[in-house]
Amino acid sequence: VITALAGGVGAARFLRGLLDVCEPSDVTAIVNTGDDVVLHGLHVSPDIDTVVYTLAGAVNPETGWGLTGETWQAMDALERYGGLTWFRLGDRDLATHLYRTHRLGEGAALSEITSEIARAWGLHLRVVPMTDDRVETRLDVEGEGELGFQDYFVRLRHSVAVKAVRYAGAETADPGPGVIEALNDAATVVVCPSNPVLSIAPILAVPGIEETVAARRDDVVAVSPIVAGAALKGPADRLLLELGHEASVVGVARLYAPFVGTLVIDSADAHRAGDVEAEGVRCVVAPTVMHGPAEAAALARVVLDANA
Amino acid sequence: VITALAGGVGAARFLRGLLDVCEPSDVTAIVNTGDDVVLHGLHVSPDIDTVVYTLAGAVNPETGWGLTGETWQAMDALERYGGLTWFRLGDRDLATHLYRTHRLGEGAALSEITSEIARAWGLHLRVVPMTDDRVETRLDVEGEGELGFQDYFVRLRHSVAVKAVRYAGAETADPGPGVIEALNDAATVVVCPSNPVLSIAPILAVPGIEETVAARRDDVVAVSPIVAGAALKGPADRLLLELGHEASVVGVARLYAPFVGTLVIDSADAHRAGDVEAEGVRCVVAPTVMHGPAEAAALARVVLDANA
Repeated sequence: VITALAGGVGAARFLRGLLDVCEPSDVTAIVNTGDDVVLHGLHVSPDIDTVVYTLAGAVNPETGWGLTGETWQAMDALERYGGLTWFRLGDRDLATHLYRTHRLGEGAALSEITSEIARAWGLHLRVVPMTDDRVETRLDVEGEGELGFQDYFVRLRHSVAVKAVRYAGAETADPGPGVIEALNDAATVVVCPSNPVLSIAPILAVPGIEETVAARRDDVVAVSPIVAGAALKGPADRLLLELGHEASVVGVARLYAPFVGTLVIDSADAHRAGDVEAEGVRCVVAPTVMHGPAEAAALARVVLDANA
Repeated sequence: VITALAGGVGAARFLRGLLDVCEPSDVTAIVNTGDDVVLHGLHVSPDIDTVVYTLAGAVNPETGWGLTGETWQAMDALERYGGLTWFRLGDRDLATHLYRTHRLGEGAALSEITSEIARAWGLHLRVVPMTDDRVETRLDVEGEGELGFQDYFVRLRHSVAVKAVRYAGAETADPGPGVIEALNDAATVVVCPSNPVLSIAPILAVPGIEETVAARRDDVVAVSPIVAGAALKGPADRLLLELGHEASVVGVARLYAPFVGTLVIDSADAHRAGDVEAEGVRCVVAPTVMHGPAEAAALARVVLDANA
């Protein structure tokens, strides 16, 4: 039984590999919802949708998010009104948000709805939001003040300096149903190659989760999202630096040391393995860049073997 | 200056004719919002949209509502989830609801948003919701209990017996901004050929509107939506009967007599002109069935001449 903490694109690609090397019904993905946003009255859960669409083989391979073969009639029509179009919602993707919003309005929990959506796409792993409560990743941005995640990430394309990040609402949130049990029951807990500040930290900010992961530390394997000092995608490197961390596998090891026993780093960072271990974290060196399903499956095997 | 009370398809077609025979900026349409519904979290205003799309020449000519050349990707994708698809929202139409919902979330009034939408479609008349407050037409349906309008109209295709209709929230609603002034200032007030129970009555139920229309009675011209005992579209005939009225131009005259001075009836009903006048309503006989723009413009001319 494997339980993974997951953000968006990087986590989704890793999970696709994981499902190739183990029984899908043995896998639980605990997914970040700090990026969730209400747009036009619709509840959008970007990381959950990226995980589901990717595992269903329906994700747009060029962007890593959204649906392949998507159409954009609604967004194009919205331009007539000068509406909010910087967050582009495809026509078929809209259906997911319509369904989620409708079910939330009926009083269903996000976790229940997420199960329904995953089932509808034929998935057999469990996809669980980190919490059914509202947690919002908010960024204090130089010259802009505090912004919501999508304002920072999509509208400003994360090309602004961040002074601080907080996870509003986390302090009073409860872990999603089954989250603590899945962490306790897992043979291996995986921290997917996701942004440490924007994807993993919000999950850990939900009371009870970090403690539970830390208690499993010996069985926790993380994949570094930083390769050769840079993020493969997104602003993880820049954010780490801005928040006073080192943008390297060593910086990741230092951040993760309290709850991660083993860090998988890319072969490009092999020369830093000693520095990682100096942080008190076991280091495994392997190719971590997932160009396709074969690399993702190989990386998943490395992660499982690291805790065999 | 002309002010019209308007429902959906029939009213929209009449208004298109009216704009052909007078200065659009002299026309105010006060539109029913009793059919408004929140679907998937989105605020849908069916009658406003039908009026706007029709006047913009963008309406689907086959249905009389929705957009021409529409695509249905979102609704088709929603079927994967077993989502609510009996109320079909086209992809481009969705943009209107996304925009409206977004602006309502920002605190804008429905009247303000409606002006923005009408302007975006290049319209020069004023389109004003009957109220900025929430009024819901609710129907007590045999064997089903009380239903919302769209449940009755779209889901059950109005093929069920109605015992009573009420306009929930009307008693505490205020007329939309400028509604009372537009009624007071108009040379002619037109009651469009719309369902008397489901389109016109909700407008009149907003406190102040019926009194104001009644005070202008001599200048109020209605077009009968009933021709030869039947509604051209929808359940007006059936509803009139079920609620104890006569499904005929005479039944309409009796219902409208308190606030309408002149009723335009179709040539097919010429033999009932005397019975209409016996209800204390002046009767004008003319072709009222609008097969296209030419008939609509001719009917608009008849209405304006009736009060010349």
